Amino acid sequence: MADIPTSHPRRASLLSRQRLVDAAKLGLLADSALIAHGRGEAFDYLLNERTCDSARTAIREVAARLQAAEHPVISINGNTAVLAGKSLIRVAAILGCPIEVNIYYRTPERIENLLVLLKNQRQEISEEIAPKKFSGNWKSKVEAVKILGAISDGRILGLEGPRSLCSADGIGSADVILVPLEDGDRCEALIALGKQVLVIDLNPLSRTARQATVTIVDEVSRASSLLFSYIVEEKSNPTDWDNDVVLKDALEVMAQSVKRI
Amino acid sequence: MADIPTSHPRRASLLSRQRLVDAAKLGLLADSALIAHGRGEAFDYLLNERTCDSARTAIREVAARLQAAEHPVISINGNTAVLAGKSLIRVAAILGCPIEVNIYYRTPERIENLLVLLKNQRQEISEEIAPKKFSGNWKSKVEAVKILGAISDGRILGLEGPRSLCSADGIGSADVILVPLEDGDRCEALIALGKQVLVIDLNPLSRTARQATVTIVDEVSRASSLLFSYIVEEKSNPTDWDNDVVLKDALEVMAQSVKRI
Repeated sequence: MADIPTSHPRRASLLSRQRLVDAAKLGLLADSALIAHGRGEAFDYLLNERTCDSARTAIREVAARLQAAEHPVISINGNTAVLAGKSLIRVAAILGCPIEVNIYYRTPERIENLLVLLKNQRQEISEEIAPKKFSGNWKSKVEAVKILGAISDGRILGLEGPRSLCSADGIGSADVILVPLEDGDRCEALIALGKQVLVIDLNPLSRTARQATVTIVDEVSRASSLLFSYIVEEKSNPTDWDNDVVLKDALEVMAQSVKRI
Repeated sequence: MADIPTSHPRRASLLSRQRLVDAAKLGLLADSALIAHGRGEAFDYLLNERTCDSARTAIREVAARLQAAEHPVISINGNTAVLAGKSLIRVAAILGCPIEVNIYYRTPERIENLLVLLKNQRQEISEEIAPKKFSGNWKSKVEAVKILGAISDGRILGLEGPRSLCSADGIGSADVILVPLEDGDRCEALIALGKQVLVIDLNPLSRTARQATVTIVDEVSRASSLLFSYIVEEKSNPTDWDNDVVLKDALEVMAQSVKRI
C-alpha cells in the first residue's frame, strides 16, 4: 500500500488510512477494526468529510456534560487511541479525569500495547506548550492524567465474559462516560446502569448512536479536536437534550448527497 | 473475534465479516481490503441490505452486455474472490469466458494465493449438480473456464507500474469487462481504451461508480448470485443505458434511511 502514485486523487485519504493499517500490524487493533474504520469512512464520505452543525451542537453538549460530571471518564479503544488519543488526553487533562483503555475484543497483549501507546502520547503532550486560554501548569496537569485499564477490578452489570470487565476507578464509578466508537451491547448496558453515555459514531442508525445519551455523528479525530477546543475555551451547562434531533439531522445531511450527481 | 456471544443482535453480520478477516490472515487480501469492505458495509446498511429495484435493472443490463460481448472477461480481486468467486465462476461457465485475477496492490504471492483459491472453487463447482435451466455438460463447461492472471503479458495503457499489468488473453483483448470492486484510476483507463466496464460498487458517488459503463450499486455476493440467475435463465439485449439514473436512484434509496429514526 505504500506505493500510492502521487497522481492518485484520493491520495490524502489513502495515506490517513495507512495509520490504521500500520497500527493493525503493530497489534494495536482487533481483527475487525479496519472494517469498522471503513464503515466510518463511508458515512463520513456522505457527510462530505465535514463536521455538520448538529454535530457541533452535540460536541458542545458533550463538553458541558463532561464539565458538569462528578466522576467523568474517557473510555478508549484501539481505533480511538490511534486516531484521537492525543486530543482526548488533552481533554482529560483539562477535566482532571481518568482515561480507561477498554476494548471489546479483549486480549492482555492489546491492552498492554494500548496502555504503552497512550502513555507515550501523554508524555509527548506534557512537553507541548500549554494551549491558549489554559491557565495553570500544563505539564503537571497532563502528567496527572491517570491511564487505567491494566487492572480489571470492576464489572459492567448486564454483560457477560471479557466484555463486562472494567476498571473500578474508571467506568465502574463514573457517572458520565465519553466512549467514542462503542459497541451497541456495551452502550445499552452502561445506559441501563443509569450512567450518561456520550458517544462519537458516524452511523446515525447504529444501536450505539440511537441508545446513547448524546451522540456526536462525526469522525472521531475531528470531533475530539473540536471537543478539546470547546472544553478549553468555555464552560457551559448541559441542556434538556433530544438526541433524535441530531441523528435525524445527520441523516438529512447524508441524504443531501443525492444532489452530488 | 471468534467469541461473539449468541445473544449479539448483529451476530450474523459479524460472522459474515469473519470470512474476510480469515482471508486477510491467509494472505488473500491487500492491507486495506478490510477497510474497503467496511465502507461497503456502511452503504449496504443504508440500502437496508437489500438489492434495490434499480440495481436489479443494472444487473439485467450487465447480463445482456456480457451475453452480447465478443470477448467478455470477468476480472476478480481478493474481496471479490472471497465473497463472490463461486457465483462468478458459474457466470463464466455459462458465458464461456475467462476469469482474470487482477489486483491493484499486486504481489506475486497474493496473485498465486488467489489463483489457487479460484481453481479450488472451480473444482467444487464442477462437481455440483447442473443449475436448473442449464442444458449441456455442466462439469465440462465449468472445467473449461480459464483462470488467467499468472502471466502478465498485457498492459493497460494510461496506467503506470504494477497497476498497468494484465493478461493479453483476458483484459488485454476484452471488449466487455465485468470488474466488481474496481479502483477509480483503473476504471478510467479501461474506459479510455474504448472497453465497456461493468462494475459492482456500493458507493454510488465513487469515481468508479460514476465512470463505469454500467454500475450495479449492490453488495457483491448478492449481485453476483442474481447475475448468475439472470444469465442462466434468459437472454436479453443491451439497452441504451443511462448510468446516472441508477446512481441517483441508489442515493434516493439511501436517503430514505432518514425515515428509519
